[in-house]
Amino acid sequence: MDSRTLQKKLVGYEAAKRIKDGQVVGLGTGTTVRYFIEKLGEKIKERELDILGIPTSYQSFLLAKNCGIPLTTLEEHDVDIAIDGADEVDKKLNLIKGKGGAHTQEKIVDYSAKKFIVIVDESKIVDELGKSPVPVEVIPSSLRMVCENIKKLGGKPSLRFYKYTPWISDNGNFIIDVKFDSIGDPSRLEKELNNIPGVVENGIFSKNVDEVLVGTKNGIKVLK
Amino acid sequence: MDSRTLQKKLVGYEAAKRIKDGQVVGLGTGTTVRYFIEKLGEKIKERELDILGIPTSYQSFLLAKNCGIPLTTLEEHDVDIAIDGADEVDKKLNLIKGKGGAHTQEKIVDYSAKKFIVIVDESKIVDELGKSPVPVEVIPSSLRMVCENIKKLGGKPSLRFYKYTPWISDNGNFIIDVKFDSIGDPSRLEKELNNIPGVVENGIFSKNVDEVLVGTKNGIKVLK
Repeated sequence: MDSRTLQKKLVGYEAAKRIKDGQVVGLGTGTTVRYFIEKLGEKIKERELDILGIPTSYQSFLLAKNCGIPLTTLEEHDVDIAIDGADEVDKKLNLIKGKGGAHTQEKIVDYSAKKFIVIVDESKIVDELGKSPVPVEVIPSSLRMVCENIKKLGGKPSLRFYKYTPWISDNGNFIIDVKFDSIGDPSRLEKELNNIPGVVENGIFSKNVDEVLVGTKNGIKVLK
Repeated sequence: MDSRTLQKKLVGYEAAKRIKDGQVVGLGTGTTVRYFIEKLGEKIKERELDILGIPTSYQSFLLAKNCGIPLTTLEEHDVDIAIDGADEVDKKLNLIKGKGGAHTQEKIVDYSAKKFIVIVDESKIVDELGKSPVPVEVIPSSLRMVCENIKKLGGKPSLRFYKYTPWISDNGNFIIDVKFDSIGDPSRLEKELNNIPGVVENGIFSKNVDEVLVGTKNGIKVLK
């Protein structure tokens, strides 16, 4: 197993230790969260834990079902704790998320959680956000207009494809990946992107992060 | 014909006079715009006008098709002029729109138009926005969370129904109608609503209105 995979597993398993009996747990999306969800499933099977999960994507929904995690919805329960991955984390705990295209549902769950813990391997830690593109979910009919407005904000948009077809989100929309030369003020950019007509949600998360567990070669580092 | 219907017809027909040959025209939604679209169709049939329309809803799409208006999309053309209705217009030309549930697509088209003209009967003119509820389009899974966030902003949200079923927008989402006691700063509220995770777009239009044609008992009044 390569060292990045080991780091992902390390923080995924550590996050599972943070879950307490009876909690409603937001289940993030992605390759790191996968280990967390699998470990939760094991603990449930071994009757160590009795919890309810709220998935943030079809991907997590199916995985959690397979792992035997009882599921619920935001209509029925508040989220006690959400565990989710990230594409980038800066020193003020701002995030870029959405490489998996699930950032809209992730933000709905993660921003509403009483506690929100991010799990990443050390390659995701950056001085300033912006090495990765910012995923933006858009209503298909607004594609060109949103791209033009994004260019006015200094971004370079490109429509995400799966082979020859535009990639469709869980909500039936397009994803535009937007490269910025620099992101000085993540909170401001998050708002500006959301105010473009046709934008459903964007992958900048500037709020609500309590802790980041970082998998490193020397174990887990905690950022607060 | 009652006086309100007459007023709607008056401004609908007047708006059709503002359309020039060769223009790409944003076709709004609603009972007032209906007269505009029908008049455009007549002018096209009589070869007075050669234009392309971009509809803002399935309702306008079907009506425009029936009226023989050649259609195009935002992918192919910029909008030279958009004509749309409103539920409320204040003195600074801020609008509440979306009683027909089409405000997301309307905003995409109207905000991108080089010229945006609003047509209303005089019952729509208010001193301050807020007599009507503000329609907010939301991703269904986020319903409760969005309602809770809206309450924090001082709004009273209620899910829009069609008989016994939640009303579904052209984009496949829910509409929440939100009553505010007062809307002091429409531009600010527009942004705050859009920054709630799960909100696709809201019915406050605080930008880009060039002119409002108001049908009154004494003819047309123009607000600029």
